[in-house]
Amino acid sequence: MKHKAIVVGLGNTGKYTVAALKESNDFECVGIIRRKASPEMFEGVKQYESLSQLPVKPDIAILCLPSKQMPEAAKYYLEQGVNVVDSFDIHDKVAQTVQMLDAVAKENKKAAVISAGWDPGSDSMLRAVFQALAPKAKIYTSFGPGMSMGHSVVARSIKGVKDAISMTLHLGMGKHKRHVYVILDGTLPESEVYKLMKADNYFAHDELIVETVQDLAPYKTPSHGGLIEMEEGETKAKFQMTVNNPRATAYFMVSCARAALRMPAGAYTTIDLPLVNLLEGERIDNIKKYV
Amino acid sequence: MKHKAIVVGLGNTGKYTVAALKESNDFECVGIIRRKASPEMFEGVKQYESLSQLPVKPDIAILCLPSKQMPEAAKYYLEQGVNVVDSFDIHDKVAQTVQMLDAVAKENKKAAVISAGWDPGSDSMLRAVFQALAPKAKIYTSFGPGMSMGHSVVARSIKGVKDAISMTLHLGMGKHKRHVYVILDGTLPESEVYKLMKADNYFAHDELIVETVQDLAPYKTPSHGGLIEMEEGETKAKFQMTVNNPRATAYFMVSCARAALRMPAGAYTTIDLPLVNLLEGERIDNIKKYV
Repeated sequence: MKHKAIVVGLGNTGKYTVAALKESNDFECVGIIRRKASPEMFEGVKQYESLSQLPVKPDIAILCLPSKQMPEAAKYYLEQGVNVVDSFDIHDKVAQTVQMLDAVAKENKKAAVISAGWDPGSDSMLRAVFQALAPKAKIYTSFGPGMSMGHSVVARSIKGVKDAISMTLHLGMGKHKRHVYVILDGTLPESEVYKLMKADNYFAHDELIVETVQDLAPYKTPSHGGLIEMEEGETKAKFQMTVNNPRATAYFMVSCARAALRMPAGAYTTIDLPLVNLLEGERIDNIKKYV
Repeated sequence: MKHKAIVVGLGNTGKYTVAALKESNDFECVGIIRRKASPEMFEGVKQYESLSQLPVKPDIAILCLPSKQMPEAAKYYLEQGVNVVDSFDIHDKVAQTVQMLDAVAKENKKAAVISAGWDPGSDSMLRAVFQALAPKAKIYTSFGPGMSMGHSVVARSIKGVKDAISMTLHLGMGKHKRHVYVILDGTLPESEVYKLMKADNYFAHDELIVETVQDLAPYKTPSHGGLIEMEEGETKAKFQMTVNNPRATAYFMVSCARAALRMPAGAYTTIDLPLVNLLEGERIDNIKKYV
């Protein structure tokens, strides 16, 4: 019997999540929830505007929404008795969010796995492995070059901005530069948009360039990357990854959805999960395969 | 209050394990157990010939023994009511060993973490992360160039061999070549030693070269390395590590000792452990730091 999953939101990540669920052997996608459901099927899956419209109760909801909406949405699904996975990516609010959701999850006897994209998500697990190998090492994470989905969503929400994409460039040693291409809506000059953006927690910590353009298309790319490095004495380790950003997020969330269904009630980040719980199949077979 | 650990065996890994325990903030090393204990202290730690000689009962035993001795030794310590960590590295016997020890651990209400070096160990965790990111990817692990401690111990145990070291060279795509330097004891010719070595499960799967030398010193190095790779569609990931082999094993075992003390009774491999359990400090602080 396959686990019944719903996908909440049908942007790029949502679309890839529907595909990732289909490719798995242990999940079926029983519905897509969107604010404005289309009567058309997407990849053979029906769209709904709310959970109550679904003919079956899903086992798990995979949230493919802007980060800022995720904690409230996760809370809602847990309260409806549905396990939940998201890719909440506001690093400095992960701890408080997992604590808030832990109480809700336990009350409703369900599990939530939050921040389950590639960073935070799989990269978080790698940072923990690196530190366990070399407890005194300083670990550097660098992102890019690539378009940040989370930063792009926030850039679009800034007053005066009609549309925007935010590119991440890495300067080495974990330092970044944000280059945001914006189409202005005419209500504020670029300098004011810059100030508002720089004041947002997403953009406050890095060098920021705001560039006004007429068309975003030439700057759009799903490609992104990450680099995690450490060096401590004779231990040198480096993890390098290039991904299609929403696609990698989608696949990792499906793996974490599997883990959520194997955990006791509570809210978790990826570093709280036994890795074997993310993998299809039986524990002992996966020990044979991966250990 | 610090956890009381003992180190069993005082080869290279044992020595680094004593050092790693000292550098941690949550462990103290309360003894070293060796077949022939020296009256001298090692790094301020007393040596004993058996557990019963220790003036205090340790919380955990970290086994720094040849792999072939580890399952029995792990069983022994569990039966004495002591949690246990080892770096058992015979890949195709990990599953049966963890099952055997699971029963013993549960009966004695203790925990064991086995195969907790860098491969199997930290690399196993990375392979699982890679697969969770790209479920259809083929994952390749390559070792070397470097001296394999496990293979060297086995090479030395072959009839006709006085001393030996086994070098691992990688051929790419997860294929390896073993180059074993041997000093013969004169009871068997090199060709017979080759046959016996090739028949051992440690050497049966790879290309093998046996070379007779007079002195092993020029070939000895603690440096080793690993490479884990995958490529699937737009996802490309690569993990590269260079380590001092016994040192990295020691540090990772201490991290896994911490995890063992945080797990319910049972036997585990590294992919069974929530990563946060390997790290010093409180869960929520580590979520802030690593997620």
